[in-house]
Amino acid sequence: MSATAVLFHFAFDPASRAARLALGEAKIEFEETAVRPWEPDCPLGEMNPSGMPPVLQVTERGKSLTLCETAAIFGWIEDRAKGDLLLASDPAERAEARRLVGWFERRFMDEVNAVLLHERMEKPLLRLGSPDARLLREGREALRAHLGELEPLASAREWLAGRRLSQADLVAAAHLSVLDYFGEVSWANWPSLKLWYSKVKSRPCFRPLLADRFAGSPPSAWYDDLDF
Amino acid sequence: MSATAVLFHFAFDPASRAARLALGEAKIEFEETAVRPWEPDCPLGEMNPSGMPPVLQVTERGKSLTLCETAAIFGWIEDRAKGDLLLASDPAERAEARRLVGWFERRFMDEVNAVLLHERMEKPLLRLGSPDARLLREGREALRAHLGELEPLASAREWLAGRRLSQADLVAAAHLSVLDYFGEVSWANWPSLKLWYSKVKSRPCFRPLLADRFAGSPPSAWYDDLDF
Repeated sequence: MSATAVLFHFAFDPASRAARLALGEAKIEFEETAVRPWEPDCPLGEMNPSGMPPVLQVTERGKSLTLCETAAIFGWIEDRAKGDLLLASDPAERAEARRLVGWFERRFMDEVNAVLLHERMEKPLLRLGSPDARLLREGREALRAHLGELEPLASAREWLAGRRLSQADLVAAAHLSVLDYFGEVSWANWPSLKLWYSKVKSRPCFRPLLADRFAGSPPSAWYDDLDF
Repeated sequence: MSATAVLFHFAFDPASRAARLALGEAKIEFEETAVRPWEPDCPLGEMNPSGMPPVLQVTERGKSLTLCETAAIFGWIEDRAKGDLLLASDPAERAEARRLVGWFERRFMDEVNAVLLHERMEKPLLRLGSPDARLLREGREALRAHLGELEPLASAREWLAGRRLSQADLVAAAHLSVLDYFGEVSWANWPSLKLWYSKVKSRPCFRPLLADRFAGSPPSAWYDDLDF
């Protein structure tokens, strides 16, 4: 393509991971710039009023474009592909994929990430002390409830939203992969979800994520194993 | 159109209002069914796993489709219109509209609605007691900060995301209109935003919202005044 694209991202931010997966699936070449959004001199503040990753800077035919966060990045990728690259053409599947993306961005973020990822990831990053046992337990319980909602979808369908790989699979895999790095997903309890995750994990777009390492915390034994 | 559409919504839920505005702008005829999502027998539980409004049930050419929440409803409206009804064709304007929708759904919800609307609306609805003065003050301060971010956009552009009315205007107006009902928006302090709001408020799609009434709490004196 004639465009150059630079993704500003944080490797363990689920939304950043979803953007990397979507660009990979769309076969759009891009450079990566790692940012630490909680640091005061983070360059994201200049690009995105919310200060949050991911931000994709695109230059195409002399014009530059700043795409802030998931909706703008996913939307741009779909627009380039005329609308059915990461969304099926079937209206019900499109609706289901959009519902699931919204679910992860709101419910999963609030109920699982804000508790469990806060304890496992944000506390060490921001030097907020050691994890709180009660919150870890609450977060793990919330995660189990969410996996329990996803398991029947993965069992009944080829992909989470239906017959085609969609935005929903990439967003779900992005979230679960961060938790999986920290050993928080007990795949043996969720056989259909495990099969689904192994399919997403085997895609070329996933490879860069499996090489990510969190300082001071090695990944779970099976994190980068395609045959886990 | 050959479809029948029923919107399940709560009149003072900003996302429900955004759906009504978008359907109105798209000139899609729909029936409204009011729901109270916090009540145990709310029919939404059967349609949307999150239990949240808005949900649009569409029957078209013998097929029925359940569209859960903003992304699915907005997406379906755009798909029907081949992608540029509530998003401009210009890529930068599309990106900006998507950024702003995400901003309202995450930042505005968390910082303003979760505090100020909780005190003004959810507490009376759920009989949680009278508003807390400190939280009211915090919510109002957060609202001022957000209006301060929106004012320069409204001043520099015809619509919030650029030259075309977009999803961003409908979502922003939906949120602000609920707060305006409760008299929380000091329009005089934000002249460009006031002008923008009066343009959105004058559109035919807005008329039904101005007739909404919250039991036990009459609207602000200027709520349904087009010349406020």
